[in-house]
Amino acid sequence: VIDASDQNTTHPAVPVVSELSSSTRLTGTGRDVLRMESQHHQIQNVTLTRGLLSASNTILRDCVGSRGALVVYSSSVARLYGRQIRDYFESQVSEPANFMVVDRAESSKSMAAVIEVCERAADVGLGRTSPIIAIGGGVCSDISGLAASLYRRGVPHINIPTTLIGLIDAGIGTKTAVNHGGRKSALGAFHPPEHSLLDAGFLVTLPRRHLRNGLAEIIKLATVSSPELFTLLARDVSTLTSSNFQTPSRTAERVILLSVNGMLTELSHNLFETADYRRKVDFGHTFSPYFEVASGHAILHGEAVALDIALSSQIATILGILTEEDLDQILSLIQESGLSLSWGAMSVDTLWASLPAVAKHRDGDLNLVVPVGIGACDYLGMGAISPQLLRAGHERLQQRSHGTSTFSADRLDVSV
Amino acid sequence: VIDASDQNTTHPAVPVVSELSSSTRLTGTGRDVLRMESQHHQIQNVTLTRGLLSASNTILRDCVGSRGALVVYSSSVARLYGRQIRDYFESQVSEPANFMVVDRAESSKSMAAVIEVCERAADVGLGRTSPIIAIGGGVCSDISGLAASLYRRGVPHINIPTTLIGLIDAGIGTKTAVNHGGRKSALGAFHPPEHSLLDAGFLVTLPRRHLRNGLAEIIKLATVSSPELFTLLARDVSTLTSSNFQTPSRTAERVILLSVNGMLTELSHNLFETADYRRKVDFGHTFSPYFEVASGHAILHGEAVALDIALSSQIATILGILTEEDLDQILSLIQESGLSLSWGAMSVDTLWASLPAVAKHRDGDLNLVVPVGIGACDYLGMGAISPQLLRAGHERLQQRSHGTSTFSADRLDVSV
Repeated sequence: VIDASDQNTTHPAVPVVSELSSSTRLTGTGRDVLRMESQHHQIQNVTLTRGLLSASNTILRDCVGSRGALVVYSSSVARLYGRQIRDYFESQVSEPANFMVVDRAESSKSMAAVIEVCERAADVGLGRTSPIIAIGGGVCSDISGLAASLYRRGVPHINIPTTLIGLIDAGIGTKTAVNHGGRKSALGAFHPPEHSLLDAGFLVTLPRRHLRNGLAEIIKLATVSSPELFTLLARDVSTLTSSNFQTPSRTAERVILLSVNGMLTELSHNLFETADYRRKVDFGHTFSPYFEVASGHAILHGEAVALDIALSSQIATILGILTEEDLDQILSLIQESGLSLSWGAMSVDTLWASLPAVAKHRDGDLNLVVPVGIGACDYLGMGAISPQLLRAGHERLQQRSHGTSTFSADRLDVSV
Repeated sequence: VIDASDQNTTHPAVPVVSELSSSTRLTGTGRDVLRMESQHHQIQNVTLTRGLLSASNTILRDCVGSRGALVVYSSSVARLYGRQIRDYFESQVSEPANFMVVDRAESSKSMAAVIEVCERAADVGLGRTSPIIAIGGGVCSDISGLAASLYRRGVPHINIPTTLIGLIDAGIGTKTAVNHGGRKSALGAFHPPEHSLLDAGFLVTLPRRHLRNGLAEIIKLATVSSPELFTLLARDVSTLTSSNFQTPSRTAERVILLSVNGMLTELSHNLFETADYRRKVDFGHTFSPYFEVASGHAILHGEAVALDIALSSQIATILGILTEEDLDQILSLIQESGLSLSWGAMSVDTLWASLPAVAKHRDGDLNLVVPVGIGACDYLGMGAISPQLLRAGHERLQQRSHGTSTFSADRLDVSV
C-alpha cells in the first residue's frame, strides 16, 4: 500500500518542491511554473498561465525566443483561435513563424500525418533548434510531437493543449504515438516537450463531453494520490463542469495545478516506463481499453476510464480493502461529474478475455490499481480477480446507476 | 587547440577508464568490453569478440537472454551468413527468433523500409523488452535502429556491424536516420544500441573498397585524437588492408579497440549533439558532403572523408598551423591506405558555395576541424578560409597525387 500524503502540497499556491531521485528534480521556480529536470537530455518546463494569446502575455514569446517555429493546430483551433494565434506571432515574435493545420480525428493520427508535418518543416527550412509548436487536442499534440522527435533526429516540441485532458495529461506527458495497421499507438517516441504552456481559458470553447473526458483523469489522480484534490472536486465539481472550468476560478486553477503536479510527480518516477510496472497513473486504465474497443469507440477514453475507476473501486470494496464509505465518495464524485458508473452492454467474458493483453503491456503482470482509501492505492495480480468478481462488481454498479439519475443531456448514455 | 594526449590509452590492452563527466562514464569491465552509461536512459554496451556466430561463443546468446528477437539482415549477409545465423539462434537461443531481410542499397534507407520492419515486429508480436537485432552494414543498422526506436515507442536495439565503418563508427553510434524527400538523414532518432557486438571476422567477406571506406574514419580519429593509433596505422596499414584486417591480428584488434574507444569518448562528450558544435569527429566531414554529392555519390562516404582530411590538413599547413612533416605523415597514410588525396573534377566555387549549408547544421558556425599535429586539432570559422585558400590547397594535393602512384586496381580512381 502506497500512501500519497507526502506528495500533496501543503502550501496554498506553490507546487511541490522535492528531491524525487538523484537524477530527477521537480522545482517550483514561481507561482505558476513547474520545471522538471529528467534523466533524459531534455528539460521539461510546464507553465500555467491565463490569456496566453493576449498581447500583454509574453510567455509564449519568451519560449520561442529568436527561433523560427512551425505552429501546428487542428482545424477547430484554426476556426476558434486562428486569427489570434497569427496576430500574436506577427506582433510578438521576432522571427516569422510558419503555420499548418492538421486533422483532429483519431483516424488521422497516422504516420502519414507525422511525415506531412516533417515535410512542411523541411520545406520551410526549420532549423535544428527551432520548435514545432502544437496548439490543440491530443491528436494534434501526438502528430506534431512525433514529427518533432523525428525531424532531423529531433527538434524541440512546445505543447499548448486546448482540451482538459491535454492540460492535465497528454500535454505534459513525454509520450507521443500514432496508430498503425489497426494497432493503437503502435509507433511512437518518448520526446518530452521543451515547454508545456497551460491556459485553462481554452476550455471555454471545449464541448462539455470532452470536458468530462478530461475530468475522469483528474478523478483518477485525486483518488489514488491526492486527498486535497479529491476534496476540492467533491465540493465544486458541478460548478466546475457547468462553467467549463471557469468558476470558481481559484478552485479551477488549484485543481489544474494539483493535477499537473501529480502527473509530473508520477511521470518523474518512471519517465520511460522502464523501471516499474506498478504505476498509480494506470488506475482506470486496465478495463478501459475493453470499454473503448467493445463500444466501437462510442465510449470516449475518459468515459472508459471513469467506468474502470468505478469497477476497480467496487472490486476493492468487495475484496474488503476499500471501505463502503470511501467507495461511496468515489462513485458519487463520478456521478456528480456527469460520468457513468457502468455500461449496460458490458460482457464479463469479453472483459476477462481482454486482460492478458493488458498484462502483456505491463511485462506479464496485471498490476490492477485499486484504491484502498482516498489518496492511497494497492496493486492486484491476475490471481486476485476472477470473472465472478468482475460480475459481482458490475452488478452492484448497475444497481447504483439505475437508482440515480445525474446524467446530463449532452452526455452519451453508455449505461443503457 | 585541444590536446588529445589524455584520451589515449597507455595500458596495452585495457580500454580507457575515465570519469568523463558527472553523468557519463566509460568503464572497462573486461579485456574486450566497453560499457558506456550515458545521460540517456539507456546503457550502451560495446563488446569486441571473435567467432560471434560459432557455437562456442555465448556473447550473443547472453545478450538476447530469454527474450524473443527480430533479426534483420541485408541480402548480402543473408547470402554469406544466413545459414550460420539461423543455426546459431536455433541451437543457442532459448526463445525462437524471427528473421527478416532488408535491401542494403542507400536508396532503400527510407521510412517505408522502417515501417516494414515495425510491421513485421508487430506481426510476430515482438514484446516491449525484446530486441530488434541488425546484422549488416549501415543501411541495415539505420533502418532497424529507427524501427527499434519507433516500435511501441522504443524497444532495445542490438547492432552487429559487418563492415569496417560499422565496426568503428555507425555500429556503435547513437544516431539512426533515413533519407526522405531527397534529403539525406531527414528523419531519424537518437537511439543508442543496447549492445554493439563487434567481430572483425566479418571483414573477410567485405569488398576491399568498402574496407577503405571504413579506414578513412579510423585515419580521421587517429589524426585528431590518437598518436598511438596513428603510429600503428603508419606501420601496418598496407598489410591490414591487403588482409582485410585479419593480419597482423594483434594490430587489427588494437586498431579497432582504439578506434571504438576514441569514438565512444567523443560521443560521450556530446551524445545528443546539443552541447557543442566543436567536435573532433567532424574532422573530414566539412568538405566531404560536397565530394559525395558533386560526384553523384560515385565517391563513397569514406573516400570523401579522406579527400576532406587531405584538404583540411593541407589548408592547415598553408596557414602555418601544421608542420610540413606532420602533413606529409597524414597524406602518406591516406595514400598507403589506397585512398585518394584529391579529386580532379573538384570545383572550388561549388565547394565554397556548399559551406553555408554545413555551417547551418552546426548552428551557424563552420567549425572546420584541422589538425595542428598528430593527435591534436583546432577549429576554423568561415572567416579563416577563402576560395583562394581552397584552390591553393587543392592544387598542392593535385601535384602530390600525380607525383605518386599508390592506387590499387579495385579502387575508384577519383583523382583523374
